[in-house]
Amino acid sequence: MTRVAIIGLGLIGGSLGLAIKAAGRDDLEVVGFDVDGSVRKRARQMNAVDETASDAADAARGAGLVIVATPPATVRAVFAEIAGALGEGAAVTDVASTKVRVMEWAAELLPRSVSFIGGHPMAGKTDQGIDNAEATLFQDSSYAVVPSPTARDSAIKSILGMIELLGAKERFMTADEHDHYVGASSHLLIAASTALFTMLHASGSWADFAKIAGPAYKDLTRLASGDPEMATDIAVTNRSQVQYWIDRYILELRRFRDLLDGSEDAIFMEFTNANMNRAKFLEGEDYDALPGTDPLAIPSSADAMASMMMGPRVYERVREITKRLEERMADQLRESSNQP
Amino acid sequence: MTRVAIIGLGLIGGSLGLAIKAAGRDDLEVVGFDVDGSVRKRARQMNAVDETASDAADAARGAGLVIVATPPATVRAVFAEIAGALGEGAAVTDVASTKVRVMEWAAELLPRSVSFIGGHPMAGKTDQGIDNAEATLFQDSSYAVVPSPTARDSAIKSILGMIELLGAKERFMTADEHDHYVGASSHLLIAASTALFTMLHASGSWADFAKIAGPAYKDLTRLASGDPEMATDIAVTNRSQVQYWIDRYILELRRFRDLLDGSEDAIFMEFTNANMNRAKFLEGEDYDALPGTDPLAIPSSADAMASMMMGPRVYERVREITKRLEERMADQLRESSNQP
Repeated sequence: MTRVAIIGLGLIGGSLGLAIKAAGRDDLEVVGFDVDGSVRKRARQMNAVDETASDAADAARGAGLVIVATPPATVRAVFAEIAGALGEGAAVTDVASTKVRVMEWAAELLPRSVSFIGGHPMAGKTDQGIDNAEATLFQDSSYAVVPSPTARDSAIKSILGMIELLGAKERFMTADEHDHYVGASSHLLIAASTALFTMLHASGSWADFAKIAGPAYKDLTRLASGDPEMATDIAVTNRSQVQYWIDRYILELRRFRDLLDGSEDAIFMEFTNANMNRAKFLEGEDYDALPGTDPLAIPSSADAMASMMMGPRVYERVREITKRLEERMADQLRESSNQP
Repeated sequence: MTRVAIIGLGLIGGSLGLAIKAAGRDDLEVVGFDVDGSVRKRARQMNAVDETASDAADAARGAGLVIVATPPATVRAVFAEIAGALGEGAAVTDVASTKVRVMEWAAELLPRSVSFIGGHPMAGKTDQGIDNAEATLFQDSSYAVVPSPTARDSAIKSILGMIELLGAKERFMTADEHDHYVGASSHLLIAASTALFTMLHASGSWADFAKIAGPAYKDLTRLASGDPEMATDIAVTNRSQVQYWIDRYILELRRFRDLLDGSEDAIFMEFTNANMNRAKFLEGEDYDALPGTDPLAIPSSADAMASMMMGPRVYERVREITKRLEERMADQLRESSNQP
């Protein structure tokens, strides 16, 4: 019987418990802990854990796998609390959305007899807390895996076993890579979404904007309703990456702004490219097999044809623009070959 | 019997037909037209119209209310096409997402015997076309109404009657106001969402980003999958407003970036304010009665208490920060009163 300890029973910790229990593995026993007694009770009621412990160290004692699923800012304190209770050879992981700082804390505080493997499930939703936990939360999602240099193979296998059981796909990377990637694909989004909301809210015409705002405004500002503590933790622990990506985003917006001064054809091709490329992304293009993309390439007619989502009108326009561009290039070639 | 003509039977035109027919009014007869014959057939099958006409002028002939629901770029051509067929006193409206240009076209092309009232329903979804049309699409949404200077009261009443029947709420404004407001609350979002997608897609690490991107990235980039023709029309017909709002957004992002260099308290209060203000927005704060907001104010403890969505931990932290700020202000007052 392997004891799995989950420390922190919020949306992620609770969902991990539900998913592990749902797998129906007789050889696993799930012990949970949360600082909030009512959350511990709810976890037992929901059958997200087999039992609960009275503190974090108690939960970790004798566990073969320890999952720290508390908010990023409290991870360091939990490491200090459980360090003395961890058994020899235990696999320890976390679910925090930044990894560089967490790996430093693990190296500093956890005993050398355990293996730390940083983790980050790329799943979640706006509504937090155990009441929103679901066994299927991680199904078909990516799960970042960041082994520490001293992690043993057997411990890495434990983590991979858990990820398989969740129905997720592991993605190995370094802590630096992780914080760079999620800085763009997740943390920047919190800044972008919050800024869209605060910009209009702080304007003198907010009452008018609020009356006219449609579903798109609600969708795109939804991350402004995330947990402020979580957002602050992320901003503080991954500060330089978030700032880097805000700067990159500003450059991209400026490029877009300048594009609007250009030709209607160029604007149309920008939107068409984005539409087609996002369709491929949603269809689950095989990025492991991707030979290298040329993002600036004008899509070929075949490409446009292949993308059934575009409809005949858009296809027709892409074909026309492509033809015009080809003619222009042919003209230029002819002119240059006519030069003495 | 009043004849209602709907020209253009896409998502919006089709949904208007379904909503008007769903109201079960015996005194209204809905005639539709679309350039695509298969769409006309589908509209009849779905019962979105009572009958279809063979061209736009034919649909408009004898109609008391004419709704032009074609893409923005084709509105001018439709006005020219129907001008000769419009009956004396007809109310003519459109659903285009920009209004300044549309009002110019109406003044230029429509006969003086009809009343033009620009319209823009603040409803929609990513999936376009009549197959996605719904009778309830406009329920509880805002509907911008922009009467031309020569529009008769009776015609305005026709439009308001239609909006009531859709279950929407009319919002009167000028064409300039409209284009300014939707420039921010709608058109900027297309740019922001598309730029988030293209920035990462064009980066050398796209394969890695794509693997790690979670649900938030999909949500926030969804407008990059909108109809490229529609997006181009909007960008071209409301160019200066879109550029103005991109510039404003860049300034807001830069403010956010600089805030990350500041104290953790300040970052936390930024996210907390955004969270609380968005909760009020979603709860449907009464903006008609709003006395004027002070967006920079620190929320009072009562405010935080009132916002049940925040949870006790966030409330406690807001209270602590508020207390620290009050103490700091009291210290400063004391110091300044001690000065000779």
